[in-house]
Amino acid sequence: MRAAVLQAVGDKHLDLCYDIEMVEPTSHEVVVRITHTGICHSDVSAMNGTIPQDVPCVLGHEGAGVVEAVGSEVTATQPGDHVIAVWSPPCGQCEVCLVHQKPNLCSAIMYHPDRLRPPFSQGGTDIAAMARTGTFTEYTVLYEHGVVKIDDDIPLDIASLVGCGVMTGVGAAINTAKVQPGSKVVVFGAGGVGVSAIQGARIAGAAEIVAVDINADKFDKIKEFGATHAVIPEELDDLKSELTSGHGFDYAFECIGIPSVMRTAYEQTRRGGTCCIVGVGRLDEFVQFNAFELFYNEKKLIGSYYGGVDARVDFHRLLRLWRHGQLDLEGMISRRLTFDQINDGIDAVRRGEVVRQVVEF
Amino acid sequence: MRAAVLQAVGDKHLDLCYDIEMVEPTSHEVVVRITHTGICHSDVSAMNGTIPQDVPCVLGHEGAGVVEAVGSEVTATQPGDHVIAVWSPPCGQCEVCLVHQKPNLCSAIMYHPDRLRPPFSQGGTDIAAMARTGTFTEYTVLYEHGVVKIDDDIPLDIASLVGCGVMTGVGAAINTAKVQPGSKVVVFGAGGVGVSAIQGARIAGAAEIVAVDINADKFDKIKEFGATHAVIPEELDDLKSELTSGHGFDYAFECIGIPSVMRTAYEQTRRGGTCCIVGVGRLDEFVQFNAFELFYNEKKLIGSYYGGVDARVDFHRLLRLWRHGQLDLEGMISRRLTFDQINDGIDAVRRGEVVRQVVEF
Repeated sequence: MRAAVLQAVGDKHLDLCYDIEMVEPTSHEVVVRITHTGICHSDVSAMNGTIPQDVPCVLGHEGAGVVEAVGSEVTATQPGDHVIAVWSPPCGQCEVCLVHQKPNLCSAIMYHPDRLRPPFSQGGTDIAAMARTGTFTEYTVLYEHGVVKIDDDIPLDIASLVGCGVMTGVGAAINTAKVQPGSKVVVFGAGGVGVSAIQGARIAGAAEIVAVDINADKFDKIKEFGATHAVIPEELDDLKSELTSGHGFDYAFECIGIPSVMRTAYEQTRRGGTCCIVGVGRLDEFVQFNAFELFYNEKKLIGSYYGGVDARVDFHRLLRLWRHGQLDLEGMISRRLTFDQINDGIDAVRRGEVVRQVVEF
Repeated sequence: MRAAVLQAVGDKHLDLCYDIEMVEPTSHEVVVRITHTGICHSDVSAMNGTIPQDVPCVLGHEGAGVVEAVGSEVTATQPGDHVIAVWSPPCGQCEVCLVHQKPNLCSAIMYHPDRLRPPFSQGGTDIAAMARTGTFTEYTVLYEHGVVKIDDDIPLDIASLVGCGVMTGVGAAINTAKVQPGSKVVVFGAGGVGVSAIQGARIAGAAEIVAVDINADKFDKIKEFGATHAVIPEELDDLKSELTSGHGFDYAFECIGIPSVMRTAYEQTRRGGTCCIVGVGRLDEFVQFNAFELFYNEKKLIGSYYGGVDARVDFHRLLRLWRHGQLDLEGMISRRLTFDQINDGIDAVRRGEVVRQVVEF
């Protein structure tokens, strides 16, 4: 079968393979035929080493499709079901899920013994799956709780986006930062995650939503998603003064992963406000805070991992918002690609040109 | 009148003066005869330059006493009232108070034109007041909303502690971090603020409360305030493994102000937990976070400024807890000092020997 493989960290392009094989599912796994997969900036981050990644590896982690087969013990889904892949599924039983109430941080399934084997191979060489998902492929094998069944009438192209970028951005606003109605918000980076954070802030009733991006060509489009203002970084200080009397924003979302932007986001947050780090930064890059401001400003600095998702609940919540016209998913698809165009899509992500691209198998 | 004056930043001791004069109160100010004042680590921080401070300056900011005189427009208090001084009083009318709902961060009164003049002098030389409070003195002049009237039967020695350290520590736990019942807490530094954070966590229903301090001589005493465990820093990792299965604590409170301890507190916090910075660090010292962990761990890093206090509400709340035996204030007074012993008390704070010392005029 076809799959796009990262052969070595640092490679600029994926190896488009036509002879990939997949392991047999265990009794608790399901085989999903991937119909659509989004290209996320995290795929690029795995390629350049920002996100640690074993190689060779089938990339992709934002996918939707149809269940083809299920293991003998699987009860929650059956062949023919339409599903969204979950790259960090909760087990629902552990201390993280039940006591900490952080299902998005549960690692019990991701590190389950069944899931540690490489799910793909090529000519006898094992191939891993990114985030134990691996959706740049025609078929993938997922743990039974690593899929969320959705209604059959939901188009699978838009469903795929919910699996990562949309959930991450909307969830950062509504789950992690808990944006309040009437508040003032700034979002750094207007790719798929940033646009989703903008939509999340709009849905939560924010009054002013400022998008900051280096690419002004996107500004008209970004405003369609709910940004009330869109500026290049150099224009932000003036707008902050105008909109917030210089106090700063109630909420700042960093959706890029760059230390200097994280620092700017913190500074643009008002005293007592919330600075939410959504972008995936590098382990070997650092952000500094002085020991006085950490106490004095009473700012809340918080990370958002997968939008604080409980996939069993939140995927449906987002799709309800889409059904009622509050969450624009169709508008987020900038380009549709075939499998053979994946590397073109990755280049477009690097250039920051697109909101989201969907690969159709 | 008597007052203890910091003549120059860097001085090891205060200048005990017996010839200090005070300005006349404006129409919106009150004169308070200070009966008791606590010595707070922030006084030491003003002496060593951690907290920026104009000099010469009457130090002290944690005081209680009796109103001696009121300006012509003052309505909320009258001569004879027992009061606690508030070093960051809310105006109750501005955007910070009403929209941001952060009365502790309101600076309208602190920077009111009436309050910008130095309130003290000595032989014609102006002398400032620390945090526009200045309680190491027999009399001080405060803005009308910079005092909170309390019941006459509350001893003024314990009332003074509520004015800073107790509010800061208890408030960090119950207002800022909002410790939940049954949770696991670690507190770094068991001085007045740390012990108050321990009491706040106990009051909020924490299950395990670990105190970390370099001075093991204090451990028996600390446990009387509610710590279930007390350890030196070298013993913490083992205890974390034992108590939290290695996940880390739900809440960590840094009550010292040292960057390396802030970093440790962050690391001891579980994924998705809250690390609360209560200690006052220096502007020229830094804490580093890598750009990956800020997103990945979904930890909440939050400063607590004056315990997130609304003095008009919270001082009474703490005194109610004291009345019902839930907040131990008497036990926090390690030593009672006369005015002439203030420098001995400051040395004891530097050595970390005491929970709280009260100067009685």
